[in-house]
Amino acid sequence: MRSPVNPANFASDNVAGALPEVIAVVSEAASVAAMPYGADPWTARVSELLRDIFECDLWAFPMVTGTAANALALSAVCPSFGTVFCHPASHANTDECGAPEFYTGGAKLTLADGPDGKIDPSVLACAIETARPHGVHNMPPAAVTITQESEAGTIYAAEHVDAIAAIAKQNNLALHMDGARFANALAALDVSAADATWRRGVDVMSFGATKGGAMAAEAVIFFREELAAAFGERRKRGGHLVSKMRFVSAQLEGYLGDDAWLRAARAANGGAARLAEGLAAIDGVTLARAPEANIVFAKLPLPVLDLLETDGFGFYRVGNDGTIRLVVPWSVTDADVEGFHNAVRGHIGAAI
Amino acid sequence: MRSPVNPANFASDNVAGALPEVIAVVSEAASVAAMPYGADPWTARVSELLRDIFECDLWAFPMVTGTAANALALSAVCPSFGTVFCHPASHANTDECGAPEFYTGGAKLTLADGPDGKIDPSVLACAIETARPHGVHNMPPAAVTITQESEAGTIYAAEHVDAIAAIAKQNNLALHMDGARFANALAALDVSAADATWRRGVDVMSFGATKGGAMAAEAVIFFREELAAAFGERRKRGGHLVSKMRFVSAQLEGYLGDDAWLRAARAANGGAARLAEGLAAIDGVTLARAPEANIVFAKLPLPVLDLLETDGFGFYRVGNDGTIRLVVPWSVTDADVEGFHNAVRGHIGAAI
Amino acid sequence: MRSPVNPANFASDNVAGALPEVIAVVSEAASVAAMPYGADPWTARVSELLRDIFECDLWAFPMVTGTAANALALSAVCPSFGTVFCHPASHANTDECGAPEFYTGGAKLTLADGPDGKIDPSVLACAIETARPHGVHNMPPAAVTITQESEAGTIYAAEHVDAIAAIAKQNNLALHMDGARFANALAALDVSAADATWRRGVDVMSFGATKGGAMAAEAVIFFREELAAAFGERRKRGGHLVSKMRFVSAQLEGYLGDDAWLRAARAANGGAARLAEGLAAIDGVTLARAPEANIVFAKLPLPVLDLLETDGFGFYRVGNDGTIRLVVPWSVTDADVEGFHNAVRGHIGAAI
Amino acid sequence: MRSPVNPANFASDNVAGALPEVIAVVSEAASVAAMPYGADPWTARVSELLRDIFECDLWAFPMVTGTAANALALSAVCPSFGTVFCHPASHANTDECGAPEFYTGGAKLTLADGPDGKIDPSVLACAIETARPHGVHNMPPAAVTITQESEAGTIYAAEHVDAIAAIAKQNNLALHMDGARFANALAALDVSAADATWRRGVDVMSFGATKGGAMAAEAVIFFREELAAAFGERRKRGGHLVSKMRFVSAQLEGYLGDDAWLRAARAANGGAARLAEGLAAIDGVTLARAPEANIVFAKLPLPVLDLLETDGFGFYRVGNDGTIRLVVPWSVTDADVEGFHNAVRGHIGAAI
Repeated sequence: MRSPVNPANFASDNVAGALPEVIAVVSEAASVAAMPYGADPWTARVSELLRDIFECDLWAFPMVTGTAANALALSAVCPSFGTVFCHPASHANTDECGAPEFYTGGAKLTLADGPDGKIDPSVLACAIETARPHGVHNMPPAAVTITQESEAGTIYAAEHVDAIAAIAKQNNLALHMDGARFANALAALDVSAADATWRRGVDVMSFGATKGGAMAAEAVIFFREELAAAFGERRKRGGHLVSKMRFVSAQLEGYLGDDAWLRAARAANGGAARLAEGLAAIDGVTLARAPEANIVFAKLPLPVLDLLETDGFGFYRVGNDGTIRLVVPWSVTDADVEGFHNAVRGHIGAAI
Repeated sequence: MRSPVNPANFASDNVAGALPEVIAVVSEAASVAAMPYGADPWTARVSELLRDIFECDLWAFPMVTGTAANALALSAVCPSFGTVFCHPASHANTDECGAPEFYTGGAKLTLADGPDGKIDPSVLACAIETARPHGVHNMPPAAVTITQESEAGTIYAAEHVDAIAAIAKQNNLALHMDGARFANALAALDVSAADATWRRGVDVMSFGATKGGAMAAEAVIFFREELAAAFGERRKRGGHLVSKMRFVSAQLEGYLGDDAWLRAARAANGGAARLAEGLAAIDGVTLARAPEANIVFAKLPLPVLDLLETDGFGFYRVGNDGTIRLVVPWSVTDADVEGFHNAVRGHIGAAI
Repeated sequence: MRSPVNPANFASDNVAGALPEVIAVVSEAASVAAMPYGADPWTARVSELLRDIFECDLWAFPMVTGTAANALALSAVCPSFGTVFCHPASHANTDECGAPEFYTGGAKLTLADGPDGKIDPSVLACAIETARPHGVHNMPPAAVTITQESEAGTIYAAEHVDAIAAIAKQNNLALHMDGARFANALAALDVSAADATWRRGVDVMSFGATKGGAMAAEAVIFFREELAAAFGERRKRGGHLVSKMRFVSAQLEGYLGDDAWLRAARAANGGAARLAEGLAAIDGVTLARAPEANIVFAKLPLPVLDLLETDGFGFYRVGNDGTIRLVVPWSVTDADVEGFHNAVRGHIGAAI
Repeated sequence: MRSPVNPANFASDNVAGALPEVIAVVSEAASVAAMPYGADPWTARVSELLRDIFECDLWAFPMVTGTAANALALSAVCPSFGTVFCHPASHANTDECGAPEFYTGGAKLTLADGPDGKIDPSVLACAIETARPHGVHNMPPAAVTITQESEAGTIYAAEHVDAIAAIAKQNNLALHMDGARFANALAALDVSAADATWRRGVDVMSFGATKGGAMAAEAVIFFREELAAAFGERRKRGGHLVSKMRFVSAQLEGYLGDDAWLRAARAANGGAARLAEGLAAIDGVTLARAPEANIVFAKLPLPVLDLLETDGFGFYRVGNDGTIRLVVPWSVTDADVEGFHNAVRGHIGAAI
């Protein structure tokens, strides 16, 4: 059988390029002079845009990576001798080479498990309660971090965030949200940004744009001014104060303006829904769960995976049992989805 | 007197936009899918370009800020308990909010002074020799860092670098070069990149592109493989492994391709020469020294500075005696230079 | 019922005082002048004693706390971006307020579980194998630490250490032994110190003396010179280079000389055996396991625990089900053991 | 000429042994059981003793080294991104292998010079004022540390401390006092401990006892409760929470009880006065300055120094011009002083 002409890459949403809206603002920003380190009009406009979007006062710091956004945000809410509660599968725990430990100066991540990539509030409550049997011998709880959309592609419902926020508040812990795919979560929840975050008790978030369609742009957003007090110094000494910051802010402006970010997220989520639907209809393919945003987990026969890889399709194998993760980017096309369906159907047919 | 229509901004070379060559490659990179974290063709090509330019094997890591490039490079050559020798006026010492201390895990910068922003080799030798009278009570010397073009706008001559490199080697210290304005230095020296660096004994450098015409792109370049061994991990945990790295690499490709970087640097240096020449010819203006690359230090009457600022010109006051720093970017035009000359002339005439 | 006159404190072995042999050498050291920072005869003699005891060349560094010994030893074998495998119940993980994370500069402890407070080699092998699916995104494995006598009071058999050491070597990891109660382990194993450590593949150990009968004395012992290279600097900058080091070394000399340490350990282990035996004979008391060295875990009715605490007995409650930990120090007397037995018997009798 | 029978060691005051009063309390503490980690009567009594001595409420933490006391105290008042002002000759800057940088997580020491080992207030004021021209690019000033008795053997007069404290308060900086030889300073000043510290504006101090006659005992004393809030955690994770803490506290109790510490300091200061007086009377010997407490700086002919060293006398050469530092410990005897005088006289006579 012939390989597909343009096999889609579902390995991650960071394989996509950048939204035309992003490139347009960046190109425009390239042609003029502007003051460095954020004293430029793009950065000012981004703060305004975020205030409009989140319907509140906030303190926003453009960044270039999600790892830095997470680690620096956590360093602002957890002392070097404290501990942050996170899900075992959280990016902060598994895929940042210890960036949270590094930026906090040696804090510990304490794991609070739960099904579907989401922290179980009762597990969290218990972990907090038992964290410090011996006083200064144990690291004091300082913060909780949740990922929305989670690494498992699932979405925390409003009540779920409420439950976690309540526990955090009771224990005087800050609540951080890793929003690397926040746009996808918002599109799935169909609520306002405010209702998804600070109105639920989120104190600080990593607002992702890179995966959603920027080149390299994120923002750490504080909803409480006092937490942001020394963030400027922390960002600078981490080497994350981009001198020509307008180029990060320009990306954010292009991303946020005219709801480009939400349209892009809806496109990705829609693609994931169609991708999952088609796969579920194929004999021999099982979905781990119905996709809640833009990530699909499916189980296929191992020989089929080999053939798909030979075709040039991109996806990520989870363990050895044929389960794969498919992340659908904003740039997905019907041809991408149908091409994958066709290839799976063909290989499964051949395999049977 | 009427304000000039477009008063030039000489506050820093990071006020300039980005080279069209840079934007072109970036825009092209935006339109396709590519693997993340550097497994993309742009990143591969940048390594090749750098190998060609430096005429040697090397290990290059794209970065987004000079501060991170410096601090991470130093962390690769200095243990947490060691010390790095630098000039008091070095960016690492004065303008990075402790990033070297942070990334090394608490190493110390030991100052080695010298005229014109350059380390005096005899001062360095003495500082190294007296650094450790009490063994483990003192931090062992680990590295030397020099800035080429220096923060004072001066250039280390080949023999000067040789002298410092010889001292470094005798003491088993690594030699780092902060090349935030390396292109300007190279254009001024008119030697090959190899002759300016590893052939002089440089072990690792921060290769700057942002100031030279990129948006946010630098590279840490190791000339000795063993020093680069854990740099991938260090970069990642610093949050500096950009996921869509192609967009950093694309900038570097646009910058390095077809000698765009050297043309840009020559334009900046040429502008600085013309700017200085014109200023020197004005009664009441004194140059601190003839500019060696793209930075001009001049002394003007204080009332003139006030008027220039009212006009909207950008420059940086050094101390309170009327000395200003003018950094000329790649985008400088004859109109920029002449506009400044005219304004100075006008204000000085009016002041007399 | 009358309270016992001198209810014993089994809360920990660090409630005991110090061996007369220790105090004797310390007192003698107090009366003369000596060079500071380890350039004294006591420190020299301790190194010799340890070389004799371990039958090998070694590099020993006196310390004052076990936490510092563990954390500094781990910092010598694990880079800031690496990970150390330890048991979930290990002191390093649970009771050092993040000292390993602090001294390493932000390394992570990865948990490798196993029954009876000991790492299961197959769990360790799997944890190492799966530690780094994503290259630089994950912290590279650097070391394994085991506690001998373990926090659960159990002893790693020789073959168990061999299995762990083999896995460590295959993966190029350093093997550290937390020997806070090494004397108790050695007395239980009845082998030579060499056979319990470096001949089994241990690279570096925290050799405890405080719990065994010193006031505040431990030693980090390296069995491989290259690992000790920068330990002097690390200890100094941690504030652990005691200026009048003779007073730490004098403790170690008193502890190690004439086998005082092993006699003390045998006394403790013997006391634990008698304590356990007597408890097991009491109806209503269950032992968690036969004690292997100087720690007894037993389950008693909760009202009995309350009464024992009222009496003034010291022990540590593990969870809420009536399980307690009793650590028997070198200073244990028959009266201590019998007094506890009598009190338990009395309270249980009364409770029934 | 015969070598003296017992040549005195003036290399440092940490060559002396320990006061009998210290050993007595330690020995007594060795013979009983007590709760660990500071929950013991000795530690409670030490806090009471210090409150009496300083005539105020305070928060005291026993420690075992001055380096740790300094570094941990500074970490409590300076964030990782801040800077601490200190004298170039301060122990924190020159002799702690970067412990302050390590414990703060990478803060910087900014040097504020002044004659006689003491910070010049005007130099300090200027250093603070110019520390932050570029906002987040520079590390914010956080604390000032002064050493009393200074490393040069000099004493800050009350007005001198007042001037520095005023500057600190104006700039919202904490004031730390390194009191490794605080007893000697107090004996020299002949004021109360309160008048020498918190009544002058000192916020936190390292209260030294080791040099003054303990084995290994210091205390970090906070005069403001809020600064001490997380010190327990910081001390623990630095490995400085000694498990059998009674043995550190017992030293402090022996040292502080019945004014033993002040008697010892007066003995040392008196010895230094006699040592200096006798030396000044010898032709060919010059004093750098009259000693203010227990440190003498004198200049002798180089051949004489060689001969004194051959005799076995201990002192520390400062530079190469024949200047030596002589630190007089509490244990000094008339024979020590006279023996040194005689030897100098003899060698100088022979040399002439």
